Amino acid sequence: MIVWLNGALLAAAEARIDPTDRGFLLGDGVFETICVAEGEPRHLPRHLHRLRDGAAVLGIPLDLSDAEIDRIIASVVAANRLEQAAVRITLTRGPAPRGVLPPQNPCPTLLVAAQPLTAAAGAVDLIVAKTVRRNELSVLSRIKSLNYLDNILARQEAASRGAGDALLLNSKDRVAETTVANLFALCHGRLLTPPVADGALPGVVRALLLERCGAAEASLSVEMVATADAVLLTNSLSVRAAASLDGHFLARDRRLERDAHAAALAP
Amino acid sequence: MIVWLNGALLAAAEARIDPTDRGFLLGDGVFETICVAEGEPRHLPRHLHRLRDGAAVLGIPLDLSDAEIDRIIASVVAANRLEQAAVRITLTRGPAPRGVLPPQNPCPTLLVAAQPLTAAAGAVDLIVAKTVRRNELSVLSRIKSLNYLDNILARQEAASRGAGDALLLNSKDRVAETTVANLFALCHGRLLTPPVADGALPGVVRALLLERCGAAEASLSVEMVATADAVLLTNSLSVRAAASLDGHFLARDRRLERDAHAAALAP
Repeated sequence: MIVWLNGALLAAAEARIDPTDRGFLLGDGVFETICVAEGEPRHLPRHLHRLRDGAAVLGIPLDLSDAEIDRIIASVVAANRLEQAAVRITLTRGPAPRGVLPPQNPCPTLLVAAQPLTAAAGAVDLIVAKTVRRNELSVLSRIKSLNYLDNILARQEAASRGAGDALLLNSKDRVAETTVANLFALCHGRLLTPPVADGALPGVVRALLLERCGAAEASLSVEMVATADAVLLTNSLSVRAAASLDGHFLARDRRLERDAHAAALAP
Repeated sequence: MIVWLNGALLAAAEARIDPTDRGFLLGDGVFETICVAEGEPRHLPRHLHRLRDGAAVLGIPLDLSDAEIDRIIASVVAANRLEQAAVRITLTRGPAPRGVLPPQNPCPTLLVAAQPLTAAAGAVDLIVAKTVRRNELSVLSRIKSLNYLDNILARQEAASRGAGDALLLNSKDRVAETTVANLFALCHGRLLTPPVADGALPGVVRALLLERCGAAEASLSVEMVATADAVLLTNSLSVRAAASLDGHFLARDRRLERDAHAAALAP
């Protein structure tokens, strides 16, 4: 695997993250995962907008233009001889002296990696995570930060219960998202997704479904998801149906699945 | 600076964290900060107990014995020619393929670094953080994980408002801790500290004050802190008084400060 790190293309095995990097020591950074199809990154301006937004929330400078990042992605995809790829951009505050307060003049780390895109498997069995809640009361719930342990713990809980993903509730018992996807539920003919204020990450494909499929934001209870006429899980790499929740089958709507998939793919 | 990384002592500038390390990409790990005084790590068994507890929560193996870690710390402190040091142990799940679900057989990263211990400054001006809340509904609030962005954001907020640290409230408006310390408030003659269930990290010095100073766990409101007869902030490197909260002076109790300091220092 070849990666781009702070200005250079190099073998991942040669790439060195400094042991004082605040991304490593404190999770101090943001990232994006981008689908590259036939060599072209999908919805790149939207991804870079969110990356810049997250970096601004944290106060991490990002000096490269969108066009420069586009060229970097192309160089990494080409160097790995990939046509379909999952590209990850990781931006951290970089190496710094000890302490929680960031340095005045950070020297950020920017890493761009590309991996082969594997076709998403079929419908997903869900559980409701018991071990963690999504903290909608932190601005972190609205940016794609490196603080992923709540999601990791819930994903481990799902695996231990034989499921593929976990529904994360917020502090008010409302549905926020899953560990790797936004959630849409078809309720009485309306396609609904939790608002960002409930702890939903403002996903790129989520926005596309809001714009293109007549979906709307609404707070969701577990009961509403369990009794929905269809439940979809979206992220930048896939649009998938949920097959079950805590062992109970969920209804499916193949036409809605096709429409959502098309909405996610269109430029 | 010389660090110990996965079995070897080496210059920090030579130490290489892999770009696929889950600590770097997802904040997937735990850490400890330990005070070394006159060459001896303070309260090491307590720190290692917490480190192991956090690693067990995340499912990260830690194969070294306490005695082995003690020897590693001694070697790092000696290599850096330090007598007084802040030692940090960082344990991550290590390099892994892409994905939120951890690998079945992780190859953890263990980093031990030592830096000169600077004397803690005087009393601390506090604010109540407005931008983030402590998520007491996640098990993460009970372990010392690498997911530090809530604390970083609150610390930045404090700095922007001219304060030295920020009080973090939980989802129920109760006081949890500050961004780098546990909090004790002297209320009507009783020394109180928020329970772990309210989002307080189970700090090592916090436990010492509970055992040695007659302190007790009790939920605290901001009002109780604002009107307390003394407010103390404790972590493994310092016991400090809080001087003010949101610009209002706090009462101080020099005798309590001395007693708490002594309780933190005694073996």
